[in-house]
Amino acid sequence: MAESHSIHRPTLEERAAEYERDMTLSATVSYHGAPFCGFAKQPGQLTVQGEIEQALSLLFRRDVAVVCSGRTDAGVHARAQVISFDVDEAELRDRTLDSLCRSLNALTHDAISVRNVERRPRGFSARFDAQWREYRYRICNRDVAPVFARDLSWHVKQPLDVTAMETAASFLIGEHDFKSFCMAASAEGKPTCRNVHEISFFEEEICGEPMLVIKVVGNAFLHSMVRTIVGTLVTVGRGQRAPEWVCDVLEARDRTAAGENAPACGLMFWHVEY
Amino acid sequence: MAESHSIHRPTLEERAAEYERDMTLSATVSYHGAPFCGFAKQPGQLTVQGEIEQALSLLFRRDVAVVCSGRTDAGVHARAQVISFDVDEAELRDRTLDSLCRSLNALTHDAISVRNVERRPRGFSARFDAQWREYRYRICNRDVAPVFARDLSWHVKQPLDVTAMETAASFLIGEHDFKSFCMAASAEGKPTCRNVHEISFFEEEICGEPMLVIKVVGNAFLHSMVRTIVGTLVTVGRGQRAPEWVCDVLEARDRTAAGENAPACGLMFWHVEY
Repeated sequence: MAESHSIHRPTLEERAAEYERDMTLSATVSYHGAPFCGFAKQPGQLTVQGEIEQALSLLFRRDVAVVCSGRTDAGVHARAQVISFDVDEAELRDRTLDSLCRSLNALTHDAISVRNVERRPRGFSARFDAQWREYRYRICNRDVAPVFARDLSWHVKQPLDVTAMETAASFLIGEHDFKSFCMAASAEGKPTCRNVHEISFFEEEICGEPMLVIKVVGNAFLHSMVRTIVGTLVTVGRGQRAPEWVCDVLEARDRTAAGENAPACGLMFWHVEY
Repeated sequence: MAESHSIHRPTLEERAAEYERDMTLSATVSYHGAPFCGFAKQPGQLTVQGEIEQALSLLFRRDVAVVCSGRTDAGVHARAQVISFDVDEAELRDRTLDSLCRSLNALTHDAISVRNVERRPRGFSARFDAQWREYRYRICNRDVAPVFARDLSWHVKQPLDVTAMETAASFLIGEHDFKSFCMAASAEGKPTCRNVHEISFFEEEICGEPMLVIKVVGNAFLHSMVRTIVGTLVTVGRGQRAPEWVCDVLEARDRTAAGENAPACGLMFWHVEY
């Protein structure tokens, strides 16, 4: 679900100069997280990256590596993940970008939908050129379990105090060291400051099942950061902690200070802006 | 999905007089259709009725039979199916209706959620006391397949002319013989007139995936009637037939005159009014 940001971001020119290929393409991809062991390729596992790279390699008859805007963990969904990859114009032959999109859909798992393929400036990176990312987290907050959105939400039975959660969320807005909200192993020796632009709450329905949606927007996110934010806010919403506790959590710079990791199935990578 | 209406509807008093038990309860039930071979009990098959009757029989230590407001076929979903059943007040012992609801949820398949249990007038029937029923049918009408609503919708790639579908639907409103819209075997020797009050179209999104929703309201429905109406309207929406063709279909009183049976997974029993 997250990025480990290196301090030096290579410029578009620096990156383009390194590339052998003469064309950069991006694809916008939706996927249902349930069948996959996450986005990132792992030997012998079904992954989104593995499926897409295998399809591209079949189409272009060589190894093709893709870069994504934000890796997602096992079970996490994506509405509009963006991936980038490089090709030579000659490799496209008489293929249009639309027909490339259709071929990718035909060659990948049913739980992946490639929504479009676009041409980008040479050297474009789905990861490094992202300006901000938006995640949405769905909670079904009622006594009875959802049946239609069961694998798209976290079922929290106890009534949540959303006003308290809003107050708690307000302390997380802005540039902070989010080390307490990062999977311990991933945080070691890496910068853990991130800028959270917005955490807002709204309601929606999925086939009549009420959902509390938590929208989280930021420049970039640490590993499991959104799920830890949600787990921490739910601790407040349940009344187990006061909203101000979130300030102590931030200050601790220690993952054990925060709330639980909210379940993967409630999380969706929603949008990335370039 | 449907009811075969007998001509004589027993009155509440007639029905109550037949019943051994002194109390009638109803439950409102949601279920995801995918795992079930439909609502109606079948030996050796996973069915919604089978699951609920088994749970009730465990709780009351005797056979309990339930009646539903509208049977649904294999794969068809229900947001608010209503079932009724009879108990003796003494059988409840110190159980409240809320605790009965929780027990039913604990004892039935995960794809079933019992939303509430209510007391009804003695002799109430979820089937015979229904005034009207509402179904909703979801179509994902775009080139790319949905991933989040994949088992909640019918993916129709070709652009649909919704205005033509609305015109076609208008010919179905009112009291008609819907024999052409009924599974042939179920229609034999039974009344096939039904009153369709409304067929309307609106758009919604499920996790960002656009859905065309067809809302169908009527006093009662024949077996596979809504799916045949939707299949017929989609034939018009694709431009394969003019809207007026629907009048010929009605007049034919022959299932082969109508369009295809739309897939089960797009259909949801939405509401029943008493």
